[in-house]
Amino acid sequence: MTDQPHKTLEWIGESRTGHLRLLDQTKLPSETVFLDCDTLDAVWGAIKRLSVRGAPAIGVSAAYGVIVGMQSSADLSREQFDANLEEVAQYLATSRPTAVNLFWALDRMTAFAASRSDLSAADILTELLEEARRIDREDQEMCLAIGQHGAALLPDDCGVLTHCNAGGLATAGDGTALSVFFAAHRQGKKLHVYADETRPLLQGSRLTAWELQQRQIPVTVICDSVAGWVMKQGRIQAVVTGADRIAANGDAANKIGTYAVAQLAHAHGIPFYIAAPSSTFDLSLSSGEEIPIEERDREEVVNAYGLATAPEGVDVFNPAFDVTPAKLITAIITERGVIDEISRDHVAAHLQAVPS
Amino acid sequence: MTDQPHKTLEWIGESRTGHLRLLDQTKLPSETVFLDCDTLDAVWGAIKRLSVRGAPAIGVSAAYGVIVGMQSSADLSREQFDANLEEVAQYLATSRPTAVNLFWALDRMTAFAASRSDLSAADILTELLEEARRIDREDQEMCLAIGQHGAALLPDDCGVLTHCNAGGLATAGDGTALSVFFAAHRQGKKLHVYADETRPLLQGSRLTAWELQQRQIPVTVICDSVAGWVMKQGRIQAVVTGADRIAANGDAANKIGTYAVAQLAHAHGIPFYIAAPSSTFDLSLSSGEEIPIEERDREEVVNAYGLATAPEGVDVFNPAFDVTPAKLITAIITERGVIDEISRDHVAAHLQAVPS
Repeated sequence: MTDQPHKTLEWIGESRTGHLRLLDQTKLPSETVFLDCDTLDAVWGAIKRLSVRGAPAIGVSAAYGVIVGMQSSADLSREQFDANLEEVAQYLATSRPTAVNLFWALDRMTAFAASRSDLSAADILTELLEEARRIDREDQEMCLAIGQHGAALLPDDCGVLTHCNAGGLATAGDGTALSVFFAAHRQGKKLHVYADETRPLLQGSRLTAWELQQRQIPVTVICDSVAGWVMKQGRIQAVVTGADRIAANGDAANKIGTYAVAQLAHAHGIPFYIAAPSSTFDLSLSSGEEIPIEERDREEVVNAYGLATAPEGVDVFNPAFDVTPAKLITAIITERGVIDEISRDHVAAHLQAVPS
Repeated sequence: MTDQPHKTLEWIGESRTGHLRLLDQTKLPSETVFLDCDTLDAVWGAIKRLSVRGAPAIGVSAAYGVIVGMQSSADLSREQFDANLEEVAQYLATSRPTAVNLFWALDRMTAFAASRSDLSAADILTELLEEARRIDREDQEMCLAIGQHGAALLPDDCGVLTHCNAGGLATAGDGTALSVFFAAHRQGKKLHVYADETRPLLQGSRLTAWELQQRQIPVTVICDSVAGWVMKQGRIQAVVTGADRIAANGDAANKIGTYAVAQLAHAHGIPFYIAAPSSTFDLSLSSGEEIPIEERDREEVVNAYGLATAPEGVDVFNPAFDVTPAKLITAIITERGVIDEISRDHVAAHLQAVPS
């Protein structure tokens, strides 16, 4: 389905004896190490320690984690199987308490089991693996569709800029913003990607640069403060980023720094695109002002590998996200297509329409 | 002259037996350590190793370094003294080969000695110390004047943002951009400073935050990518930065990231000020397009204390400076006053006028 050179996650083998293989993202970019998770604790720990990260990738991992956790129950009564399933799901849900996709995937697995109460324990385990594979495949299809719709917006022979990592590493497939670049590259379009390093956690230099390098797509890492300057120099023809949450009016929350990049793109007349699955829209939020912004630990900013980079006790403001107002967004790309005029009505119509 | 809590540099004692004391900036912000340089090699090494940095501070240190280097010549013939002086100056000039203020200060010291060839070796040594003190004092006065002129532009009870370190640590006095904040603070104006950490070398979090903390001025460190977001939140009423070189039309080169900050200030209707001595103008440059931009080593960006933060061999673009066009600069503050309409004619008039 994809030419992903290293799978973020993968089920190896059959339902009763197989296991979940994860690319250990904590070792990137220095080492490409895979974790073979064949116990429930191994899956739980891998999610907890951020060996796998990104909302969609966590969801798919948890679905496969259910299979790992239920293998020892395949010869029990169905009643006992269901009781154990409940426990396994509850345990996996504690690995990342705020990850919405994690709960969503676990709920889908338990609901599926409940819908097929006619099957034996052995048979439902086999069927549950099929359901996990469907979740996996749907995520990959979503990524590919976003890539197709987005690639059409990029001119040939262009410079593009992205912020943070909205890549394959955050999904079971090609990612969202990076999927646009991968699709354009597959279509033979020439492009050069500028990757903001993305302080404080450097997802851009650590992960985005790695993914592009793996695909042999030209990439240049820059400090976040250089984004405006490369735009000024005429090196950038489009900006594409992901989003964590999009309000009903199109205001989009994404990694801190996205707002500044959108403002700078606007000042230079460069189109600014958001690429995200339609599930990112939260229509209960009227505008971006209602999106809560998580503030993270000061140590992320002022402590580099145990070395203090600021005077002791100094105040730090470390928001994890910012909100880009709809008026700075040229278009939003989802697996359904492109919203090229951002308004409450166009967002609603896009989400209600039959996917293209 | 200043309420500087820790002097960046200071001459201790008399001409024949005294020495240069430097605040060791390589130890900041973790430790406040002073280097007592009582040999020529100690002064040379301190400049070389960046224990003292910033063009004005290097110039003043070199002037005092001449005294340290000439103390052993005080009982020689004047002819021998002059020959040794030439050697000492040439040696000190090799400590930072590209620092213009270093050569300027050494030239001023040797020219002063030449102008007083009537004095004995012992007497010219005493007079040379006076000349070094004058260079020191002039630098301090320049800083204070910039502070006075700039502080008048800040409203009471405001949030201000700065980028990099244009502080006392780069001069013998209060610095340039930070001198504006220090003066406003002395005048009793309430202000809260947001300090961009300033990747890749973190002069903002390491040095600017330290200087403000020392003066008990409220300061918050932010990643460079947060500057736009704090402006959006209404926390910033003015931006003040230094400059490394200003062209005849007012285009200003400063630390990479300054251009983006100026664009973001413009987008939010926030005044953007440059604070720099009038010696920063280079009238041989017609516009900012003629300012050469130094590109620095990729390791500064992708190697954090020996740990790779990007995949091996990945391309990095690491310019040291960028150029902010005059049209984005609200005013330029020098020791002579304020240029509040940036044009070729106003710059020329400002530099020709008798200092206010």
